[in-house]
Amino acid sequence: MAGKKAVLRAGSPELNIKPAKTLQILADFLVDRVEGRRFAGVVLGLSGGIDSAVSAAVAARALGPQRVTGFFMPYSQSDPRSEKDVVLLAGRLNIELVKQPLTPFADCFFAVIPPGSRVRKGNVLARLRMIVLFDWSHKTKRLVLGTSNKTEILLGYGTWYGDTACSMNAIGDLYKTQVRQLARYLRIPRSILEKTPSADLWPGQTDEGEIGMSYALMDGILYRLFDLGMSPREVQEAGFEPKLVRRIVRLVQANRFKSMLPEIARLNEK
Amino acid sequence: MAGKKAVLRAGSPELNIKPAKTLQILADFLVDRVEGRRFAGVVLGLSGGIDSAVSAAVAARALGPQRVTGFFMPYSQSDPRSEKDVVLLAGRLNIELVKQPLTPFADCFFAVIPPGSRVRKGNVLARLRMIVLFDWSHKTKRLVLGTSNKTEILLGYGTWYGDTACSMNAIGDLYKTQVRQLARYLRIPRSILEKTPSADLWPGQTDEGEIGMSYALMDGILYRLFDLGMSPREVQEAGFEPKLVRRIVRLVQANRFKSMLPEIARLNEK
Repeated sequence: MAGKKAVLRAGSPELNIKPAKTLQILADFLVDRVEGRRFAGVVLGLSGGIDSAVSAAVAARALGPQRVTGFFMPYSQSDPRSEKDVVLLAGRLNIELVKQPLTPFADCFFAVIPPGSRVRKGNVLARLRMIVLFDWSHKTKRLVLGTSNKTEILLGYGTWYGDTACSMNAIGDLYKTQVRQLARYLRIPRSILEKTPSADLWPGQTDEGEIGMSYALMDGILYRLFDLGMSPREVQEAGFEPKLVRRIVRLVQANRFKSMLPEIARLNEK
Repeated sequence: MAGKKAVLRAGSPELNIKPAKTLQILADFLVDRVEGRRFAGVVLGLSGGIDSAVSAAVAARALGPQRVTGFFMPYSQSDPRSEKDVVLLAGRLNIELVKQPLTPFADCFFAVIPPGSRVRKGNVLARLRMIVLFDWSHKTKRLVLGTSNKTEILLGYGTWYGDTACSMNAIGDLYKTQVRQLARYLRIPRSILEKTPSADLWPGQTDEGEIGMSYALMDGILYRLFDLGMSPREVQEAGFEPKLVRRIVRLVQANRFKSMLPEIARLNEK
């Protein structure tokens, strides 16, 4: 049991990445896609969180900072500390930063959404950000860089056609705990590195509180299910609480549709 | 040459569908997906055009009219005749109709878009409609029914994450000329059946004017490329103007990304 407890305490050592090599792969990907499609660069939303910070830092290294535009799109109820972090990050990376408050756009929608409907409001905000980014993409011929990590993508933790919508994604094959490793290597500001992960959909929200376990546990379970191909029972036998494994499996199944193209009725089923 | 000219005049007889059988397949698909996912019904945007009219009619037949909600979402510059057609259609089908003008939402965005940027404005409108439909979907537990036909999907003629965004699509395997056949069988009102197809992105816009050929020609070329597996040269040799075949191939290639999931950088290329 000592070995099993160690896994739960320390996360999964198998999830350790080689940051320099990883950075090179992601940078090559971005250069290839941007230049291959003859775009001028990338545009991405900066939330003040670690995923968008790492995405921006990778893009700035890959393409040069002048080909990266970050959009900060707060709503009046967003965490006010986010702006400080975004300004700090954009300054360090030397990338263009555009602030576009969402309040006027969002309040049109929120007039008909009950105040307590936090998920509906969060979805509207995520989709309004998508509209702003894709409009800028069209205007400046920059590809929209997605910022969802592998943990979020597998769990479907995001808004369909909202924050998950993008032209391409550099960090989508990295679990959250791996994004953190890359963030340390990229010297992302400490205030971003150490903050509690939150989609900031309402004041006080945290990802781990909402999903009900730490990212180390989520990633440990997901890695065993998806990368090692273990069954849920095998993951439990490896030392993960059955209740948590079941919760992960349920989330994956319930949200799988978000990672697929919408289904079309086929006239000739093959 | 007589045979070739006949093809060009009459469209492609191979594209004739059996309407009763087709309707059954599409209806079975909708019932299966709505009930399988335990949703209460479907919601879709009604533009006054033939694609959304046929989608609504199929859904009303499949699920019963009480499980279908149509949204009419005009912008101040939209064709005023559309509302009359939508009201007529919803009345005939006996489905719920909700009018949600987009002008207040859109004008927030349009304040920073130059008036001449018709594509940017059209994209914003299409994506705002998506937000309204998916918010309703969440509120009433109805799946968002897409209304793009096969011609539009193959050509990428639509707004990514806008009108092409949906939970599922009943008519997406039918070419435009086949949607028309099904529309006649479903007794869609004549004013909808006979109007010139238009995305109504700006006054006077028509699909055929913008793409530069009739839907009969588009469908004839696409059918040979995608269903018969002919090469562009073979399609030309079958009697289609080389210039038009090249235009279709160019559109398909340029917009193929709209039919794919956004690409993610892979750490272990296989």
